[in-house]
Amino acid sequence: MPSIEQIQNIPEPTLRRLPWYLAFAKLIQRQGGQYLSSTQIAHDIGIDASVVAKDLSYVRISGRTRVGYPIAQLVDLLEEFLGFKNTHRAFLFGVGSLGGALLHDSGLAQFGLDIVAGFDSKYELAGTSINRTPIHHIDRFKDLQQKMHVQIGVLTVPVDKAQEVSDIMVEGGIRAIWNFTPFRIRVPEAVVVQNTSIYAHLAVMFNRLSHTQR
Amino acid sequence: MPSIEQIQNIPEPTLRRLPWYLAFAKLIQRQGGQYLSSTQIAHDIGIDASVVAKDLSYVRISGRTRVGYPIAQLVDLLEEFLGFKNTHRAFLFGVGSLGGALLHDSGLAQFGLDIVAGFDSKYELAGTSINRTPIHHIDRFKDLQQKMHVQIGVLTVPVDKAQEVSDIMVEGGIRAIWNFTPFRIRVPEAVVVQNTSIYAHLAVMFNRLSHTQR
Repeated sequence: MPSIEQIQNIPEPTLRRLPWYLAFAKLIQRQGGQYLSSTQIAHDIGIDASVVAKDLSYVRISGRTRVGYPIAQLVDLLEEFLGFKNTHRAFLFGVGSLGGALLHDSGLAQFGLDIVAGFDSKYELAGTSINRTPIHHIDRFKDLQQKMHVQIGVLTVPVDKAQEVSDIMVEGGIRAIWNFTPFRIRVPEAVVVQNTSIYAHLAVMFNRLSHTQR
Repeated sequence: MPSIEQIQNIPEPTLRRLPWYLAFAKLIQRQGGQYLSSTQIAHDIGIDASVVAKDLSYVRISGRTRVGYPIAQLVDLLEEFLGFKNTHRAFLFGVGSLGGALLHDSGLAQFGLDIVAGFDSKYELAGTSINRTPIHHIDRFKDLQQKMHVQIGVLTVPVDKAQEVSDIMVEGGIRAIWNFTPFRIRVPEAVVVQNTSIYAHLAVMFNRLSHTQR
């Protein structure tokens, strides 16, 4: 059984690959599969088998030699391990184009993120709702947070407000910020920041595409 | 002047950091700044100055000693370099929760991605539109593509359709796939794949958050 020390050292690349294995395992499960080996995952996903085996060693599951892992258990453990089984409540800050889009994505709830409210500085948005999520004026955050003790904040404000709103979030007790802005926010060390700039991915894709055309 | 060979070798980490510099430069520009040095970018963004200087060396811009880069030129060159200035037309495949959400995000257009149509296998969606983007049945893709020659496909279908729809896209001449599913699609080598699984980022954040609580 791994110590807490070991658990804490799960490399980020592993954490990013595990959802691939989960998606694949669920697919095979839906197709009626009973067992899944790391060799099969590796082959079908196109990743080195030793990498898959090492990644799965962080999830405490034991496979049977040759047959592999019982698929139902693998799916279950991976979902548990990745935190998709618990509901994590979150506030969203910045109900603009991207923020509104995320509120439309009910897929987030399936992966354990429940956005319970959105905040914006525009007074005309206060009192409205998107996809049944209520929108409040940002001034109401402090009050609501004192009742709700939400730990996760989704940051979708314009770049020039990113730092200011992060400061407000941290001051109110938000402990993890999912930063969708291309701005590098600064927060106290104890606060978790996950940067997801989808526009940066766009730049990578444009660049790769332009080179295949030469 | 770098050769094509050199341009092709822009490392992905550089391509992912350049949008951060761009966002920061635009912020300083809006605040009335005239010049920006790589030292200042490095300091304010929290990245090593030598990394910033090296990253910016890929963009052909020359700064003045001590004063830095003229900010307007830096913003302009970065936008150009990252492909945000050109309009890249794209089709979106899978108008479910996430696909619909992306159609609501007009931010994508600002970064050069113009989703001109969405496709879905649900007949009841055909003929509708989201945020002024028309939705068609997937069967119409081939026909439309023959007229439109779109190069980019955004993949937001369920996991169990990811490979099948990718194959249809590639067969129709799509040359770059922005894959939002957690499924690792297989495509011919010449096709660019950009994986953006936001749910995988969620897993990383949950994991980090749970460890700060121990």
